[in-house]
Amino acid sequence: MTTPTIGVFDSGFGGLTVLRSLIERLPHARFAFLGDTARLPYGSKSRRTIARYAAESAQFLVREQGAEFLVIACNTASALALDAIQDAVPVPVLGVIEPGASAARKASTTGDVLVIATEATVRSHAYAAACQARGLRAIEKACPLLVPLVEEGWTDHPVTAEIIDIYLAELRSEATAHGLRPDTLVLGCTHYPLLRPLIEHAVRPGVKVIDSAEAAAQAAVELFNGRVAATATGASAETEVRCFATDSVEKFERLGSHFLGRPVGHVELIDLGG
Amino acid sequence: MTTPTIGVFDSGFGGLTVLRSLIERLPHARFAFLGDTARLPYGSKSRRTIARYAAESAQFLVREQGAEFLVIACNTASALALDAIQDAVPVPVLGVIEPGASAARKASTTGDVLVIATEATVRSHAYAAACQARGLRAIEKACPLLVPLVEEGWTDHPVTAEIIDIYLAELRSEATAHGLRPDTLVLGCTHYPLLRPLIEHAVRPGVKVIDSAEAAAQAAVELFNGRVAATATGASAETEVRCFATDSVEKFERLGSHFLGRPVGHVELIDLGG
Repeated sequence: MTTPTIGVFDSGFGGLTVLRSLIERLPHARFAFLGDTARLPYGSKSRRTIARYAAESAQFLVREQGAEFLVIACNTASALALDAIQDAVPVPVLGVIEPGASAARKASTTGDVLVIATEATVRSHAYAAACQARGLRAIEKACPLLVPLVEEGWTDHPVTAEIIDIYLAELRSEATAHGLRPDTLVLGCTHYPLLRPLIEHAVRPGVKVIDSAEAAAQAAVELFNGRVAATATGASAETEVRCFATDSVEKFERLGSHFLGRPVGHVELIDLGG
Repeated sequence: MTTPTIGVFDSGFGGLTVLRSLIERLPHARFAFLGDTARLPYGSKSRRTIARYAAESAQFLVREQGAEFLVIACNTASALALDAIQDAVPVPVLGVIEPGASAARKASTTGDVLVIATEATVRSHAYAAACQARGLRAIEKACPLLVPLVEEGWTDHPVTAEIIDIYLAELRSEATAHGLRPDTLVLGCTHYPLLRPLIEHAVRPGVKVIDSAEAAAQAAVELFNGRVAATATGASAETEVRCFATDSVEKFERLGSHFLGRPVGHVELIDLGG
């Protein structure tokens, strides 16, 4: 019996926040992480293009790396391409949207939820649909400046706090205009956990902040845990993680540690042919 | 005799600021503009990847659209892939770096120049090299938040003014530390002309702002003008412009008009296979 490999996929390296949560919960699993950095950001691209890119990336993790489960650690790909990925590979695939919506359901008392995410995730209304399926009302807002601010390293900069205030004020106005009384905010992008302290500070008292990266890791544990625990007896305590990227390996190695919470080590460059 | 077609290429639609300057100067030419929007931003990718993307885009404009000249309206592609593009097509190719550096040479009295651009353009040091070849000393700075701010539409927002102030203050400190007395600032990204009013307001009195989009259009006129004028006699005053994109046509049509200064009209979706 071998230790199962969990494939984790993102368009960039933001999904390392999901990997971080997974490693904390499943230290005995083996992980292969792929960042499709040559073709990021998915957030501004069409559904057709995102589906093709995501399917190719998923196939690499399953066929080349032997992944037996896939976690799509990318809100945009989860929102727009989960079906395409499930069609492309013969293993179980878990996205971040459904776990995020389930966590919001548990957290919310009023049943009214705010969601911040990238442009493409919001345009897909995947969070609104997943929330609605759980009896929640959700208002979504695209916050396209937050990813570049995180990548610039301004995670505790006053300008970032100011921009978060502007975005959240606009979102609250819209919620009020729709007669909602939101008590929960979902972080619908894997970059946003790095802004969590500023966001916690900016929300109104009593509003709970849900991190869909953590929610997805928790859902993965519930799905995979029995199997990993059963096969990992006697495995090394040092979690095995291999990282792959389609471009900009240097940037991945340099910035990735902020997302993973420890050095990412060597990142292998691969070519998905486009 | 036919009216010659000038191909204009960018990774996105920022290069429409170059096309705008070209149309003003060569209203009788025919233009084909390609934005490789499926694969933007080039600014965060490697030289190898950028060269491949840019060569494929140039070949589309020459082979499929019959372009007899090419203007690379993208600082990153000009900085990292001009040679690769010149190797890929049999027509004259003009980038934006050399004209920008020449305009800085004309503008500067002290011989000390500041350059702001994307991460990849700065990493290439293409402006510094082009300036040095003209006897100028240049200090370059990557300003990765400015493109997303323009695309968010915050071109006259107080937060944008604040971020420009921060970037320019850092750049001035670095220039002072190197003993430079800069009197010229080069806008080394085709998105930045939309921030020109805020940037003009942020620079020290007496500092001249050079727009490399305008400089490139002027250089193109000097190269192409005789030929276009000679063959365009009797042509319609309505300049013929066809726009192509590899993705996100809707976003191109919606935002492009701010860059072009008039509606971009219908944008045709093409597939470059990656």
